[in-house]
Amino acid sequence: MKDSLGRLVDVLTSLPGIGRKSAQRIAFHLLKNPDNGKVLVAAVESAINQLHLCPLCFNFTEDALCPICADKKRDHSTICVVEEPQDVFVLEQTGEHRGTYHVLGGVLSPLDNVGPESLHIKELVERVRREKIVEIIVATNPTVEGEATANYIAQLLKPLGVRVSRIARGIPVGGDLELADRETISRAFEGRREL
Amino acid sequence: MKDSLGRLVDVLTSLPGIGRKSAQRIAFHLLKNPDNGKVLVAAVESAINQLHLCPLCFNFTEDALCPICADKKRDHSTICVVEEPQDVFVLEQTGEHRGTYHVLGGVLSPLDNVGPESLHIKELVERVRREKIVEIIVATNPTVEGEATANYIAQLLKPLGVRVSRIARGIPVGGDLELADRETISRAFEGRREL
Repeated sequence: MKDSLGRLVDVLTSLPGIGRKSAQRIAFHLLKNPDNGKVLVAAVESAINQLHLCPLCFNFTEDALCPICADKKRDHSTICVVEEPQDVFVLEQTGEHRGTYHVLGGVLSPLDNVGPESLHIKELVERVRREKIVEIIVATNPTVEGEATANYIAQLLKPLGVRVSRIARGIPVGGDLELADRETISRAFEGRREL
Repeated sequence: MKDSLGRLVDVLTSLPGIGRKSAQRIAFHLLKNPDNGKVLVAAVESAINQLHLCPLCFNFTEDALCPICADKKRDHSTICVVEEPQDVFVLEQTGEHRGTYHVLGGVLSPLDNVGPESLHIKELVERVRREKIVEIIVATNPTVEGEATANYIAQLLKPLGVRVSRIARGIPVGGDLELADRETISRAFEGRREL
């Protein structure tokens, strides 16, 4: 039977991006500094207990509305549609988007039985109908599923008279043509702009 | 003010080997799967509360004696001296050492005010005096402090009539002479054996 140390290493190894060696290192760090362990326990518990989904955009929040939806200074006529709450987190760190968000909670994936009804697409359509929306920027990932979801949303929303755009796909800044795959290069040519 | 999500990311980032991006990924994983978060909380709490140091070898254990010290089938006449409990964990995975262990809890480091009295060296001397010890294998890390600690222990124990040995330092298996530093190459020559 495993003791509590072995079990802790197992649990830590099950977290994304943590291998067995890192898990061991973290486990011994927590045992050597039990106060850090208590801080971690409190942080996980309070995050799990206090965070819930914003009823408007489905991002995580502690309040009735998330800080972005509640912020009157943001541009509420432009909604950026993303797959997961972490995408909001990442985009907010760039400060690039001044509008609000809508988190789908995944992408369409028929093979995994994820259809439109499993995502927050119905609520997006309701927002477009209810609020004065000018543009929907679809920022799902440039994967097969992300593209399919973007196209589905565009077909659904365009008849409602809203502009639907897609973030550009191309060679990443600092990237290398040599290392780019064919599809990315094709998208980079498609999206070229006059200098 | 940061919300509980920001705080969780901060706490996770403070763990060894976890950068900001990994911390974000783990935090969102725990929020998306709150049951995994609860399992993590329980594992950290039970490890912190149930594990303590073995009074004989100072490895972590849940019992009065650690499973290695309590195991009558192990060779109790050979003690492997290591810096930290994780070293026992690593060595046990190789199955190389059939004796018992003694965890120092660190290395001699005058600059950090770590003298012999801060480590479990006195208890090691007592074990050598009390038990029938044939050999002490010093497996501290091959750093300046690890070597100094090994030499200190050897000077202390040799007068007691016990054999004190040091694990070999050399080119790691699968390693490359080209990448080895001068000191390692020097040790590899010193420790050469006839073929």
